[in-house]
Amino acid sequence: MSSNPSLTSHLPALARLARHHCLTVTNAAQSGHLTSSLSAADLMTGLLFGGTFRFDVSDPDHPNNDRLIFSKGHASPLFYALWALAGCIEEKELLSFRQFGSRLEGHPTPRFPYAEAATDSLGQGLSIGFGMALSAARLDQLPYRTFVLLGDSEMAEGSHWEAIQLAAHYRLLNLVGIMDVNRLGQRGETMLGYDIEAYANRVRAFGWKTLLIDGHDFTQIIDAFREAREERSGPVMIIARTVKGKGISFLEDAEGWHGKTLSGEKAKDALQEFAGVDRTLRGRIASPDNRRPEWVAPRLIQAVQYEIGAKVATRKAYGNALKRIGSKFPQLVSLDGEVSNSTMAEIFGEAAPGRFFEMYIAEQNMVGAALGLSLRGKIPFVSAFAAFFSRAFDQIRMSQYSNANITFVGSHAGVSTGEDGPSQMGLEDIAMFRSILSSVVLHPSDAVSTEKLVEVAAAHQGIIYLRTLRQGTPVIYPNDTHFKIGGSQVLRQSPDDQITLVAAGATVHEALSAYEQLQQQGIHARVIDAYSIKPLDVDTLREAADATGGWSRLKIIIPPEDSGKPCSRRFAIGRCP
Amino acid sequence: MSSNPSLTSHLPALARLARHHCLTVTNAAQSGHLTSSLSAADLMTGLLFGGTFRFDVSDPDHPNNDRLIFSKGHASPLFYALWALAGCIEEKELLSFRQFGSRLEGHPTPRFPYAEAATDSLGQGLSIGFGMALSAARLDQLPYRTFVLLGDSEMAEGSHWEAIQLAAHYRLLNLVGIMDVNRLGQRGETMLGYDIEAYANRVRAFGWKTLLIDGHDFTQIIDAFREAREERSGPVMIIARTVKGKGISFLEDAEGWHGKTLSGEKAKDALQEFAGVDRTLRGRIASPDNRRPEWVAPRLIQAVQYEIGAKVATRKAYGNALKRIGSKFPQLVSLDGEVSNSTMAEIFGEAAPGRFFEMYIAEQNMVGAALGLSLRGKIPFVSAFAAFFSRAFDQIRMSQYSNANITFVGSHAGVSTGEDGPSQMGLEDIAMFRSILSSVVLHPSDAVSTEKLVEVAAAHQGIIYLRTLRQGTPVIYPNDTHFKIGGSQVLRQSPDDQITLVAAGATVHEALSAYEQLQQQGIHARVIDAYSIKPLDVDTLREAADATGGWSRLKIIIPPEDSGKPCSRRFAIGRCP
Repeated sequence: MSSNPSLTSHLPALARLARHHCLTVTNAAQSGHLTSSLSAADLMTGLLFGGTFRFDVSDPDHPNNDRLIFSKGHASPLFYALWALAGCIEEKELLSFRQFGSRLEGHPTPRFPYAEAATDSLGQGLSIGFGMALSAARLDQLPYRTFVLLGDSEMAEGSHWEAIQLAAHYRLLNLVGIMDVNRLGQRGETMLGYDIEAYANRVRAFGWKTLLIDGHDFTQIIDAFREAREERSGPVMIIARTVKGKGISFLEDAEGWHGKTLSGEKAKDALQEFAGVDRTLRGRIASPDNRRPEWVAPRLIQAVQYEIGAKVATRKAYGNALKRIGSKFPQLVSLDGEVSNSTMAEIFGEAAPGRFFEMYIAEQNMVGAALGLSLRGKIPFVSAFAAFFSRAFDQIRMSQYSNANITFVGSHAGVSTGEDGPSQMGLEDIAMFRSILSSVVLHPSDAVSTEKLVEVAAAHQGIIYLRTLRQGTPVIYPNDTHFKIGGSQVLRQSPDDQITLVAAGATVHEALSAYEQLQQQGIHARVIDAYSIKPLDVDTLREAADATGGWSRLKIIIPPEDSGKPCSRRFAIGRCP
Repeated sequence: MSSNPSLTSHLPALARLARHHCLTVTNAAQSGHLTSSLSAADLMTGLLFGGTFRFDVSDPDHPNNDRLIFSKGHASPLFYALWALAGCIEEKELLSFRQFGSRLEGHPTPRFPYAEAATDSLGQGLSIGFGMALSAARLDQLPYRTFVLLGDSEMAEGSHWEAIQLAAHYRLLNLVGIMDVNRLGQRGETMLGYDIEAYANRVRAFGWKTLLIDGHDFTQIIDAFREAREERSGPVMIIARTVKGKGISFLEDAEGWHGKTLSGEKAKDALQEFAGVDRTLRGRIASPDNRRPEWVAPRLIQAVQYEIGAKVATRKAYGNALKRIGSKFPQLVSLDGEVSNSTMAEIFGEAAPGRFFEMYIAEQNMVGAALGLSLRGKIPFVSAFAAFFSRAFDQIRMSQYSNANITFVGSHAGVSTGEDGPSQMGLEDIAMFRSILSSVVLHPSDAVSTEKLVEVAAAHQGIIYLRTLRQGTPVIYPNDTHFKIGGSQVLRQSPDDQITLVAAGATVHEALSAYEQLQQQGIHARVIDAYSIKPLDVDTLREAADATGGWSRLKIIIPPEDSGKPCSRRFAIGRCP
């Protein structure tokens, strides 16, 4: 069954104008990825203006807009050209592409409101789309669909295969991948070149339906989108054979043009190929359903209840906290990388199975999915061993450019993880999360502070990292103690203090023990629990330093980047000395 | 064609003893992964003692030993049990498993000389094996083969699919994967459970030969290893259906036993199942060929030759340096993630194509492969955009436990990368690499210092990170200048210095410009190029601080973790102000 020709007849002229824009904006910027844009121009024009895509251009925040993600974000000239065709960008602004201060950045970020997420660290777009599709299908029951444009080069990234397997596992019918197989990467031919059957075999083996098309044939393009809409077996990957540089004769399928722009005679020649282009053309995007997600009222929740001195692992308190606050934060969801019986996210998973997502041992996709969920208004708590977040550092890094609202919870922090050895110990995690702009790093030492800080995290907008411990630690705080981002607790002090001990997490208990030993030697110590590692409560630390004999006597035993390493990596660990 | 029964008749008793060891060591430690060891016991006994594996037990460093990697390193009880069966560990030492100070760590590390690499951050073993296989096939022309034991849970990690695709691309006939499909992960059933056909379809679609067997049938096991040896189409994956907990009746295929040990009555019951086990049994491992890699003599090389003032991007100087020093370091190899025309590794790739490996856009596997090459005596230089090493932080982190000898070269460092935007800028890279124990972080500012430091890096044993710049910077050093790890250069100084400016990389040139402006205001500044960011030349900095009015006047403008972020992420970048 083939499309009615009247459905596609307006598309070639629109695609031609899109290509013209790609050329003029990269000419103006003398920078940007022209040829990578040209290969996908027909596919994306067909998607947006061929009746499939549904989006209220006057309201990019409409909850039922279809989602469009350019995982190959370097095709940003095309991305902006499409939104210009839709009437959302004036031609004048289009020419600000890649200029300082322009919202049309070299690779899309949400500074441009039609960009769902910042993309292009390659291999991340499908995970973000997976998160958005999961949100629609499993949480909000909204009929919007998510379309992800994928480059062929970036299919070499394992992260995409993580997303593919999980989308099949969750049988997401509302997720469509569009693979732009233009054969050429940055440096030369891709591993698979034009072997689109090989891509199809792989994607099918991972549980998706595949549709192989000529990415420059509008009838095939429109038919594929219609088939994708009607498919009920699982997610669909449209695998399109395309030509890099398509539409500018001397760039077509030519090597050495990735990320290159035209100038002088070549720019002139290229422009001539667009003689007579109608710059007034505009495409119409179909309107979305006017469905909104159901509003769930927050409920009052129980207070924290622990007994001083009881031994509770902070990871257990984390699970307890999620369960306790779940009804206060109806958008809160939990994702875990097949270790929920270690991170104790399983406590929430058992209490609220519909809001817990098993992401298996695929941390990169888990973080990308969390970003997608967060961008659809959810409050994701993502848990794994602290050490294994290093697996997803690129996804964490990129999420800061998408205004992510995610709390990462890393268990088994530090050498106190013990005999499992260094591979399982979070030792670099603080350095990693501190390097993220405006991130918050929290490391509570007992169950009460953990519960309170999880609640603080749920209410906070931004990226938070919370470290928990494997072993049980005694409850040291009364249930009504107040904890905040940037705060600390002075646990021991007297007017005679001679030294200040600053600790966080497991070392708080070591500092309290050191305090006792020092007392016996007649030395008065101040003990501070600097549970907020970033931002640090500098005022309190400064005050303590001034009070206890100056900075030379301030001993910081917060685990720094290299904490405990000689211990952890040179010896097997029974109990860390 | 089935194996001669005489080839397998000795294996059941050996496997039974291996299982017995797994039980007793985890009982003794009251910690460790018993059930995950039991599922693979027949497979691995069959491999080591069934005639396939070739290894000189008296010489674990023999260059032609077959390589054995437990990617599922948590099956360490089995790993150590096998080497005990081979006579390499006394039973007494076996019982030191997971004790403080023992070389038999919770997850294997090379402190135990029969462990090729530290494993278990899951999903990494196949990349390491790929690197070793690549070394044998493409560099040393040695007939050893590399065997990697894989867990089914860890097949969810995208990194493994990166390794699978690259091993097929390089058609490595000397690499064998052994997938232990025991159905159960840490928390419950895996995504695919016992659907071994689904695994096989995926692996085959990625270009491997697959063999599906019952992982507890020695005839099938031995036949599979023989078939794998004879296969000539590509790498082989043996996909074995196994039973978690196999050999202890009440643990078999039972949920809730991952990482759990036995005690009390249960331990007794389990031990009874091994009544009459012959603890004196030993298995024989076949001997390796006595082939050694050909020795290539280092040659004299040309000196560095640049003209002061010439504008050369340090990334270009990096490529030039690799080409220049290649013959001095015959073991030097270059790996690049499909951006060699940006990192400029292509200069070496063109000069020495046999020593350059295109790793495509799959950074995790690239780093794992580099580790494998490094452990086979190569000197890998691994290049990518600085930002994209965040993709492989877990692999970088793990490599420190394998005594890796790798230089990571990140191009496009910092905001000076410009209009491509924050996704392409190395901003967190210094924080990341500094967090690695004993790592070295170098950031040269011109072509001469880059060339010299690349040569230093090639001669250094350990993990080095070297950052390069996208844009051209003027040569500021004479060709005979000396650079070293931990060094710095004082570029401007006088007895009247009032302030010290410390810089590295691009900011060196900004500091020199600030020096000129300060001079015009009558302010004398000292300018230091702290090209060795870790270790930092503290003595020189301290001296400068003392000489120029104390620490309050020491302005460190080395890019810190958050360098330039307000600039990079809040605005598109034409030229960073």
